[in-house]
Amino acid sequence: MRTTLRRVQANADEPHRVVIIGSGFAGLFAARRLARAPVSVTVVDQTMHHLFQPLLYQVATGILSEGEIAPATRDVLRRQANASVILGRVTGIDLEARTVTSRAIDRELVTSYDSLIVAAGAGSSYFGHDEFATHAPGLKTVDDALELRGRIFGAFEMAEIENDPQARPAWLSFVIVGAGATGVEMAGQIAELAHKTLRSDFRHINPADARILLVDAGPRVLPQFDERLSHKAADHLRQIGVEIHLNVRVTGVDQSGIDLVTEDAEHQRIEARTKVWAAGVQASSLGALLADAAGVPLDRGGRVPVMPNCSLSGRPEVFVVGDMMSLRDLPGVAEVALQSGRHAAGEIERRLAGGTAPAPFRYRDLGMLASISKNFAVAELGPIRIWGLAGWLLWLFVHLTFLTGFKNRISTLFHWAVSFIGRGRAERTTTVRESLVPVPGDDQLHRG
Amino acid sequence: MRTTLRRVQANADEPHRVVIIGSGFAGLFAARRLARAPVSVTVVDQTMHHLFQPLLYQVATGILSEGEIAPATRDVLRRQANASVILGRVTGIDLEARTVTSRAIDRELVTSYDSLIVAAGAGSSYFGHDEFATHAPGLKTVDDALELRGRIFGAFEMAEIENDPQARPAWLSFVIVGAGATGVEMAGQIAELAHKTLRSDFRHINPADARILLVDAGPRVLPQFDERLSHKAADHLRQIGVEIHLNVRVTGVDQSGIDLVTEDAEHQRIEARTKVWAAGVQASSLGALLADAAGVPLDRGGRVPVMPNCSLSGRPEVFVVGDMMSLRDLPGVAEVALQSGRHAAGEIERRLAGGTAPAPFRYRDLGMLASISKNFAVAELGPIRIWGLAGWLLWLFVHLTFLTGFKNRISTLFHWAVSFIGRGRAERTTTVRESLVPVPGDDQLHRG
Repeated sequence: MRTTLRRVQANADEPHRVVIIGSGFAGLFAARRLARAPVSVTVVDQTMHHLFQPLLYQVATGILSEGEIAPATRDVLRRQANASVILGRVTGIDLEARTVTSRAIDRELVTSYDSLIVAAGAGSSYFGHDEFATHAPGLKTVDDALELRGRIFGAFEMAEIENDPQARPAWLSFVIVGAGATGVEMAGQIAELAHKTLRSDFRHINPADARILLVDAGPRVLPQFDERLSHKAADHLRQIGVEIHLNVRVTGVDQSGIDLVTEDAEHQRIEARTKVWAAGVQASSLGALLADAAGVPLDRGGRVPVMPNCSLSGRPEVFVVGDMMSLRDLPGVAEVALQSGRHAAGEIERRLAGGTAPAPFRYRDLGMLASISKNFAVAELGPIRIWGLAGWLLWLFVHLTFLTGFKNRISTLFHWAVSFIGRGRAERTTTVRESLVPVPGDDQLHRG
Repeated sequence: MRTTLRRVQANADEPHRVVIIGSGFAGLFAARRLARAPVSVTVVDQTMHHLFQPLLYQVATGILSEGEIAPATRDVLRRQANASVILGRVTGIDLEARTVTSRAIDRELVTSYDSLIVAAGAGSSYFGHDEFATHAPGLKTVDDALELRGRIFGAFEMAEIENDPQARPAWLSFVIVGAGATGVEMAGQIAELAHKTLRSDFRHINPADARILLVDAGPRVLPQFDERLSHKAADHLRQIGVEIHLNVRVTGVDQSGIDLVTEDAEHQRIEARTKVWAAGVQASSLGALLADAAGVPLDRGGRVPVMPNCSLSGRPEVFVVGDMMSLRDLPGVAEVALQSGRHAAGEIERRLAGGTAPAPFRYRDLGMLASISKNFAVAELGPIRIWGLAGWLLWLFVHLTFLTGFKNRISTLFHWAVSFIGRGRAERTTTVRESLVPVPGDDQLHRG
């Protein structure tokens, strides 16, 4: 394949060039914040979409379509005349030459910047056990969500045709590793599938026989929340049929199950065909490059320590925001990403306007929410703790408000109505690739 | 992997066992027709969904989500107590032993039948050139539609970053092979994308520069329609920017383009990165097995010649329906599939009730419709020919009526409003696998 290079030439008349790596919350809100600034904005991402990551679990469990949580980035930025979007995986950043190199198929692109915002996010971390990944996908991308959708609905299908009574329980066992918000939400949704959605769908199995296990190395679920809410959440999870195993470490994951070690060093083996990894995150590997250049060590999650204004030490024109940023132990949540992205954009504007004193990033904590099942969520807003139906209504209100900026809010509302008022799931469809039939079908014969 | 066999034992008290292979229009409507019959119905399919195939082109071009046209088969048949659904690719039919063998992962299942309805449909045919498939996917499955969605939107993305003026046109060239309903609809939709949907989305290219070529070996578009409607359709396609090349044969398809030979034996090469194959269909390979057993030759499309009541010659308990059936030159359309599936089910009921004289299948032709763009469709209803806006309103009415049986009609309506009233497309999202970034991203690092 041919490789061509394009260099966007600097030129005196050209406006200040801001390159943003990543189109997640941090990248997108940085770009939007610069809509009226005298700059040109280029967003580079390896996907064509912005992703509303906190709702990925609803795509994985058949409530929403991928389009509803992942609008095309260039469609979102369509009316922002100073913004352009390019598809490509970033393969290099040259902090001296001030260029970003990206690739898509056989095209390598070198884009020059005057200011750079790095917001490439984080992926799943298997804590040195990358071999677990095949058997326990994470929940970070649209690919992940559709893969898990195929595995979860497919597992019930396999149980239905499994006539060996010894083998059937493994198909009906679901292990979710990690009891943070994503893990708790996945466990709650799989429980709803088993007890409600699929109730009348099968003839040879009772989907309610499914075992849903939520395991975590720590002592409680939702550790980022107040302890009282953790207990409320755990109680509700148990009530809807989720087994909670705390203080256990995962020592092995394979096709047919998972190995655990308890606090007392007791080994446990759980036969479970479906595993979901919601345990750890690892910031983009671009972080290593930046930390190296700045002479700072990456933190444990692979995040880059930054100055109080989110810039890279010694590089006032480079900002690291969102899940890649290590600053005052701020959590890796959407709201931090969004606000830090906006802050970095504001800092670029300030510098352009001749401002000298960097403004530190102040995170405005709007609270935390986790929805466990229909009619039950926990919420922590400063000193206020809400749970149950009230929490769930708050969750609904917050998400509806946020999604107002999304074109798909009407169909999202409809799909929520289907699953919250009814018992259905409108988006259960999987591809053959994601289903469990390994031999290509006749109508697949001609695919490469 | 272990292989276990399960044989559903016949037993005097057990009701008559009907096995249906395929959950498309023919299979699903056969199953539904038997809802109140004294039989047990088992539907076997390699996917978990029923597929509204005539709207696949709308999934490929970002109008609808896959869930909107492919509801879970077991959800559709949930309330039909005598029906069960099993996932599996059929690997064998034993007409003597009256069993169907299917596989899903490591499970092989042998299901006994008293009556069998084979409705496994058809895939794309490359007329002996299966090597074309990788470069020119067909449009027969959800996988196909999502693959094409990634390629079509991805091609515009690649054009945007392609700075070699020689190489850019190939990314903006789309060749659709086959000018039947699917080909015409795809060409019309890609033209709408280029001229309307994507109008303000790009900064370095003008999407309206896209070349959309519709090629066919025959002398006119929509050959199944009345010649006057073919001309109306061709005129409209040209008006919205589609180039029509008739009487040309495809002699080669590769990554960068397509080779054609005209009537006058003139060779043409078209550089085009995106190719769609809508030229031919080939019935499921299960047909060969059935034709062999019945001692009849397959027809040119791999379809099985059947008796006037849709049963296999010499096997009154076996029916072949839908796209696999060869009977009086009936076309391979949804309506034939649906009616022949119902007819076969009726024949089984008749035989069970002691009826002896087979009832021939009478196809009630409800007419043909093809929607070319927003506000323009052609329709042929017996002697009546309608085109333009009137045709399109009829198309809309027919599809809305049909989709009434579908849970997703409200979100479908919404998505149609988005693209028919507005200029948007709500379902453009592709996975990384389907997009054009070949190197796994950081957040993909841990996928197997």
